[in-house]
Amino acid sequence: MKKIEYCFQVQWGDTDAAGIVFYPNFYKWMDEATHHFFAELGYPTTVLFEQKIGLPILEAKCQFRFPLLFGGEVRICSVITELREKVFQIVHEFYKHETVAAVGYEMRAWASFADGKPKAVPIPAEVKRVLVEQLSPRSAEFQMRAK
Amino acid sequence: MKKIEYCFQVQWGDTDAAGIVFYPNFYKWMDEATHHFFAELGYPTTVLFEQKIGLPILEAKCQFRFPLLFGGEVRICSVITELREKVFQIVHEFYKHETVAAVGYEMRAWASFADGKPKAVPIPAEVKRVLVEQLSPRSAEFQMRAK
Amino acid sequence: MKKIEYCFQVQWGDTDAAGIVFYPNFYKWMDEATHHFFAELGYPTTVLFEQKIGLPILEAKCQFRFPLLFGGEVRICSVITELREKVFQIVHEFYKHETVAAVGYEMRAWASFADGKPKAVPIPAEVKRVLVEQLSPRSAEFQMRAK
Amino acid sequence: MKKIEYCFQVQWGDTDAAGIVFYPNFYKWMDEATHHFFAELGYPTTVLFEQKIGLPILEAKCQFRFPLLFGGEVRICSVITELREKVFQIVHEFYKHETVAAVGYEMRAWASFADGKPKAVPIPAEVKRVLVEQLSPRSAEFQMRAK
Repeated sequence: MKKIEYCFQVQWGDTDAAGIVFYPNFYKWMDEATHHFFAELGYPTTVLFEQKIGLPILEAKCQFRFPLLFGGEVRICSVITELREKVFQIVHEFYKHETVAAVGYEMRAWASFADGKPKAVPIPAEVKRVLVEQLSPRSAEFQMRAK
Repeated sequence: MKKIEYCFQVQWGDTDAAGIVFYPNFYKWMDEATHHFFAELGYPTTVLFEQKIGLPILEAKCQFRFPLLFGGEVRICSVITELREKVFQIVHEFYKHETVAAVGYEMRAWASFADGKPKAVPIPAEVKRVLVEQLSPRSAEFQMRAK
Repeated sequence: MKKIEYCFQVQWGDTDAAGIVFYPNFYKWMDEATHHFFAELGYPTTVLFEQKIGLPILEAKCQFRFPLLFGGEVRICSVITELREKVFQIVHEFYKHETVAAVGYEMRAWASFADGKPKAVPIPAEVKRVLVEQLSPRSAEFQMRAK
Repeated sequence: MKKIEYCFQVQWGDTDAAGIVFYPNFYKWMDEATHHFFAELGYPTTVLFEQKIGLPILEAKCQFRFPLLFGGEVRICSVITELREKVFQIVHEFYKHETVAAVGYEMRAWASFADGKPKAVPIPAEVKRVLVEQLSPRSAEFQMRAK
């Protein structure tokens, strides 16, 4: 398994009047981490997009444990926790130093929009092969409960 | 039970290059719907905020069924699905006409930040009384699966 | 001249850790006000978009006079201050009750993207006729300085 | 003069249904570039904030020349173009390779919020000294017109 991490800094505009990150931004970062994940595996979504392939979201969940603050350095570690014919689940753990500040997952489909509107299609065998290597033995729910 | 609905229109800036709503915006709208919910019940969060009371998010999940498009009129119906001493769960259903386009929930705490950092405290009895009236007999998970 | 106003409420997510609106949101609202402006004049941008017509931004400026706060009700009054063959300028005044909290303008082109990438084309005569009626005698710079 | 550059990649969520960056995001990036600018000069705004110093925006303008696309690598070069007692102007040029895709400026005050609401105060002499070194001989308007 290749360790895939997405690092970023909390920007001023990510905060709200409580002085912490406005929670929908965690989903923005999960989205960014998924794009980064596929780029790291050799399948940048910019290229997939040109090939009329997208990864539409089916479901996303996040648990918030410690607030993130302006200027904070954050590291997202991403693994695959489920891999089906046309659908996969990816877990994202948000690290502030060694602490898990939040953990979430996304369920996404592999979809072709060659005919205009997106339609789930089987994940190509070569992509599946690299995703299998990123499979974590623990399910998303376990990871969300355990930490 | 008072029927509480939050209505809005999808703005141009809510879309992405796939021509549909960028998914983190659904969480922005769930947040808006919760603020609206408490205002409708007589507890506007602007006033709670002045009293050093906030509703920090613990967990949020959303299932996406039909994409929302630029200009679309959306109606969110919100109900309480769990009510504990210091924590509650609120379910938000996104309606495009009569179709459920998405359904999600938020788990939030009732918290005082009188001492600087937020600390969960018991939901006041008078607030609990009005929230009980907004309780749905069906759990969040049932609602997310059934529709 | 038809009085065109766009009203909205400042949402929690619009604020930042200083407890006021994060300034790029004013441009988001100017964009929304322009879409509303054309809808009010009988040319909704949702319909223009289907006809492969867009209004790409060329330049935008805003002056900030009083901060906007969470929960605040805001009214944007929009007028045309310049009308050229393919380009127009629209001024947006942000009102908090009777006070101008901010004032800005956008320069936009009338553009066709029928051939893929957008290309400025002459504003159709019938659209020009309704825009002329929304022309303010005072220029954008005057409006920004005077208030 | 120390060359100060802020680099970032256009994210999926920055785009809109026209397939290009939604324009208010340019202001979000100007804000990020200003925070980066002060950090590079030894005055991180995270530290200033703890000292009850903020840099409230007075005015911001941007000209858009070439659209930015999903995945694009962007470089912002920032210089000071005006330096007054309590106020400064900072110009941000957005580079896509060697092309200026956009150019904008921000006018900001140096403000203390030690007494609750922000109040412009003189820029400290030591800060002024480092800002003077970042002064560009060309005014903001010249830079916006010339390129």
